[in-house]
Amino acid sequence: MTTFADRAERLTELVVAAELDLLVVTNLVNIRYLTGFTGTNGIVVIGPGVRVFGTDFRYYERVRLQITEYDLRRAKNDILEIPAKVVEERAESEKLRLGFDDAHLTVRSHERLAELVGDAAELAPAGGFVEHVRAVKDADEIERMRRAAAIADDLYEWLVSDHGLAGRTERDVALALEVQAKQMGADGLSFPPIVAAGPNGALPHAEPEETEIARDTIVIIDLGCVLDGYCSDCTRTYATGSLDEETLSVYRLVQDAQAAALNGVRTGAELREVDAIARHMIEEAGFGEQFGHGLGHGVGLEVHEEPRLTPRAEGELVSGNAVTVEPGIYLPGRFGVRIEDLVIVTDEGCEILTSTSKDLVTVSD
Amino acid sequence: MTTFADRAERLTELVVAAELDLLVVTNLVNIRYLTGFTGTNGIVVIGPGVRVFGTDFRYYERVRLQITEYDLRRAKNDILEIPAKVVEERAESEKLRLGFDDAHLTVRSHERLAELVGDAAELAPAGGFVEHVRAVKDADEIERMRRAAAIADDLYEWLVSDHGLAGRTERDVALALEVQAKQMGADGLSFPPIVAAGPNGALPHAEPEETEIARDTIVIIDLGCVLDGYCSDCTRTYATGSLDEETLSVYRLVQDAQAAALNGVRTGAELREVDAIARHMIEEAGFGEQFGHGLGHGVGLEVHEEPRLTPRAEGELVSGNAVTVEPGIYLPGRFGVRIEDLVIVTDEGCEILTSTSKDLVTVSD
Repeated sequence: MTTFADRAERLTELVVAAELDLLVVTNLVNIRYLTGFTGTNGIVVIGPGVRVFGTDFRYYERVRLQITEYDLRRAKNDILEIPAKVVEERAESEKLRLGFDDAHLTVRSHERLAELVGDAAELAPAGGFVEHVRAVKDADEIERMRRAAAIADDLYEWLVSDHGLAGRTERDVALALEVQAKQMGADGLSFPPIVAAGPNGALPHAEPEETEIARDTIVIIDLGCVLDGYCSDCTRTYATGSLDEETLSVYRLVQDAQAAALNGVRTGAELREVDAIARHMIEEAGFGEQFGHGLGHGVGLEVHEEPRLTPRAEGELVSGNAVTVEPGIYLPGRFGVRIEDLVIVTDEGCEILTSTSKDLVTVSD
Repeated sequence: MTTFADRAERLTELVVAAELDLLVVTNLVNIRYLTGFTGTNGIVVIGPGVRVFGTDFRYYERVRLQITEYDLRRAKNDILEIPAKVVEERAESEKLRLGFDDAHLTVRSHERLAELVGDAAELAPAGGFVEHVRAVKDADEIERMRRAAAIADDLYEWLVSDHGLAGRTERDVALALEVQAKQMGADGLSFPPIVAAGPNGALPHAEPEETEIARDTIVIIDLGCVLDGYCSDCTRTYATGSLDEETLSVYRLVQDAQAAALNGVRTGAELREVDAIARHMIEEAGFGEQFGHGLGHGVGLEVHEEPRLTPRAEGELVSGNAVTVEPGIYLPGRFGVRIEDLVIVTDEGCEILTSTSKDLVTVSD
């Protein structure tokens, strides 16, 4: 079975289990996952025996050659006419139950879709179905992510050995990383990279500033590469010279908490329990308030997806999940430390895709 | 008055005119326009005497120093608690009318917001308000777009003089353009660039292929630069050697139609009439069916925004609109030609921001 047929099959099982006749998929990332389509206007309608993909004239010719698992339709004006047509073709005496992604469809599009299907179907909120399927990666996806993570490793190696940190501005380093990632073969970066030195590192989502990175400080770098649509994500924290004992001890604490949490990753581990491993160690050391985000998140076509490793997450890890493990400690006005790996969950533990050193590295000028 | 205060004022006039008490702004691009905020979680609530901006802990510290025109709030869990709190603070005997962006808010968020405000407010669909304000650029925005367009000019100059086309793959050229744009000072490109040679050029939104660009063919390049958040957009079509007479005549037709449409751009021109100038010329020459998209679109923080120059658009151009003028002819299986400028509408005509040559340029190897 092809990859796309398999994904459609897994999704259809969820559709049937939810007692829906059809599911309309409107989120373009979900559509890419199901069909490979990378344009800006598309729709999928799926259910038992139904595999419909629609787009407009701009993309129709191109996808005719590429999307083979779906019945292709060309939208005239409004892409929502396509699910309405599928409903019309299947209309029975009983109303069809047509699921839609309530976490994606806008109020206006929902109203339009309801008008178009009229009495032939009732719309049922059904968000998160494709995301649920996406959370378990297949071999092809894992291989793409492995390669995306390997480029990020090379990028860190280049940064440490060839480029340097102190004396450059955060913004210059961020730009150099973006350019170098492409020269190393990445399609791009997963998100604008974080390069946050000293006090700026205390903001978990700092934007690179036009300020020069000092010597004898600590710098958070958070970046990922995109390859063939798939993201990687990796954070390392570097020294630019000698650090005081407190900074070193915070680094060691984060490093130990990260290693302990990694040890807890395996099929069947509760999401919140994995988060708790690192959180508990950081709380015990008195820094609980300074770790203000979840331990990690899923990664794939998007850099933030299912599942989430947070204190309130429900559910457990399964084989094939791709998640980050990234505890951090942020001391406002002073500095921050975060260490992040991207891993694939296996039955026995995990495969760590990001392999650049996690021991404290001092980057010389 | 500061730029942000002025924008809030213009928006408030629309809110009042629509008989709303408050407007909730959820689209992050709109929020950036109103406040300068560039993070991933924010909300604005605006109305007469009300200027509220909310975000979460990740961004709160940063924006406290940056956003001065708004009353800042920190969201605990759900960002939608912020508009609910504002409603609660202003609750009167009569229900408030709370506008929301129905073209952006999802069905799920709408349901959540309705729950949170309860009986204190009724939700009223109010999409497009901020987009309407954004369609008229102020001096600061025009200057950013001028600079973004100037980098794109330099990029085309570099492509023609230093880099070349024939013998390289479309993908290699696209990548080189992205890297070069950053080295020339752009924050990035407005969208993945189109580099479409020969038959691939007949797909209006072609993706660069791994195929080598031939000699004696015609190549569409469509790209824009981003600078300080603002986009530019420019298409040129180049020869890689000698072309047959039909290709040359299609090029001249597009060039003439583009020039004629530019001549029709001025304050007060009907949107559909400007489209019709180019469309009529192309139809008269027998290529009406091969020009399957609108003449142009607004550009600003997004590369596609209001207003649209299409056959069915309603309304007219006003001074300060930033629009593209980009007729194209696409002959399936053979080739395409498109020429696109980005212009600022003025009372008398327009200022063309993209100034690289529109005469057919032959790029040597």
